[in-house]
Amino acid sequence: MTFKDKLAEAVQEAESTLCVGLDPNLDLLPAGLRNKDIADPAKVSRFLKKVIDVTREYCAAYKPNLGFFEALGPDGWDTFQEIVDYLPPDKIIIADAKRGDISSTAEHYARAFFEHFDVDAITLNPLMGFETLDPFLEEPGKGVYTLTLTSNPGAEDILLKKLPDGDTVSAYIAQRLRQRQDKSPTTLGMVVGATKAPDLQPVIMHFPAAPLLIPGVGKQGGSVVELAEALANHRGIPLINSSRSIIYAGSESQQWPKEVARSAKNLKQQLSPITKKYV
Amino acid sequence: MTFKDKLAEAVQEAESTLCVGLDPNLDLLPAGLRNKDIADPAKVSRFLKKVIDVTREYCAAYKPNLGFFEALGPDGWDTFQEIVDYLPPDKIIIADAKRGDISSTAEHYARAFFEHFDVDAITLNPLMGFETLDPFLEEPGKGVYTLTLTSNPGAEDILLKKLPDGDTVSAYIAQRLRQRQDKSPTTLGMVVGATKAPDLQPVIMHFPAAPLLIPGVGKQGGSVVELAEALANHRGIPLINSSRSIIYAGSESQQWPKEVARSAKNLKQQLSPITKKYV
Repeated sequence: MTFKDKLAEAVQEAESTLCVGLDPNLDLLPAGLRNKDIADPAKVSRFLKKVIDVTREYCAAYKPNLGFFEALGPDGWDTFQEIVDYLPPDKIIIADAKRGDISSTAEHYARAFFEHFDVDAITLNPLMGFETLDPFLEEPGKGVYTLTLTSNPGAEDILLKKLPDGDTVSAYIAQRLRQRQDKSPTTLGMVVGATKAPDLQPVIMHFPAAPLLIPGVGKQGGSVVELAEALANHRGIPLINSSRSIIYAGSESQQWPKEVARSAKNLKQQLSPITKKYV
Repeated sequence: MTFKDKLAEAVQEAESTLCVGLDPNLDLLPAGLRNKDIADPAKVSRFLKKVIDVTREYCAAYKPNLGFFEALGPDGWDTFQEIVDYLPPDKIIIADAKRGDISSTAEHYARAFFEHFDVDAITLNPLMGFETLDPFLEEPGKGVYTLTLTSNPGAEDILLKKLPDGDTVSAYIAQRLRQRQDKSPTTLGMVVGATKAPDLQPVIMHFPAAPLLIPGVGKQGGSVVELAEALANHRGIPLINSSRSIIYAGSESQQWPKEVARSAKNLKQQLSPITKKYV
């Protein structure tokens, strides 16, 4: 099955474009599992499995963020593997790795994530050039989400800089990705920020078939209404990611799993003006 | 001791600006240790320790490249830790991670590399903006090498694009880093490619005190003579990295450790026109 087909099925089955970001931040774990100073992979793993159990009904995808697993030290990679193995096979699994490197390093990253961990998709950073994507582009069953317009204020520093022809670096990245998709069995997608809805349209219009991974709704404050407008003419299926506002809901309470489920359900419903286009 | 002081001492002690890149590529290991299809962390570890033993006399720094360790799966991180622990304490250890992410993810990366693994420096990718560096900037004993002008052909795609004011993205990154150094206890350095010597001068002139990490000599074909010219007026100490041309020297022979030592010694000598400025 191609990545695009799996993505479409996952969204249809859950009737949801929600992606739950798995960012196991030691400072924010529910009170009963928190231990700020000592990384305890067993507790992190217990936490994430419970999050998965109570949110799977409401989302199409999960996005474990490698930074948080790496911070656990060598055990973090076992934890990452354990969580990837635990995730339901009908959900899209995106390794949020933001890797970007050349030739044999990139080949090794592709091997690590597409073969060893066998996730559905990875996020990549294109700063070093589009050749850095090559080792990831021969896998029809896999997807690559390339950082194109991120949701943080620092997107102004490079991604929203204008080039002499008047396009932003982000719009230029989108054009290059669309050209590359023609020759690539792997599905090429883009990471674009929900907090940048007014800047989104001129970027995604260059690659209207691209699946999108959209962080920034939730804690970062992106508006679902503006986002729905910006996506009105987009054909590629979006996944809208929220991490903190879902997984740390109710973290001071013993009832946190209920709060986590409730926040996932709420966000799924909020996203329905967007989702209905794709189900 | 500040990172800058440790760097100066390491270069003076070894009378070398050589950095040995530790890229454990399973396809290229010496014949007796090679096993292309099955990652064997014990063999990788044995190989790298031997490389370290025979090259330490000739270099000031080591740069383990995370991609190759991650490709070993969860065991790869134990291997990375083992190698970091094995490296001589008077050498600069640079984790070539090329990470770039925001807020709490970046904080977790900083924790992983500066606290858990306790390396001297890390490479970072600035695409998402300069705020992504912040969590790394409070450590006087540590260094950050930011990707500024890479040595691969794909540097043309984004880093060498001209902005409307006529400067390249690379030159702009250098300016922003210099400004940031004024407020940062961490030493800020730049990754700049040796294959791009003619493009180097207009970039490093914006940040003349920056330590440089320079890949591209060796297998990638950068010229030492051109590089020495480009660095003539630069005050920040450069480390010139070579990976494959050193660590896989003689890999078809049982005598490979001798060949590895010889290639490190040769490159150290080739670099002496550059090194002599800093010892």
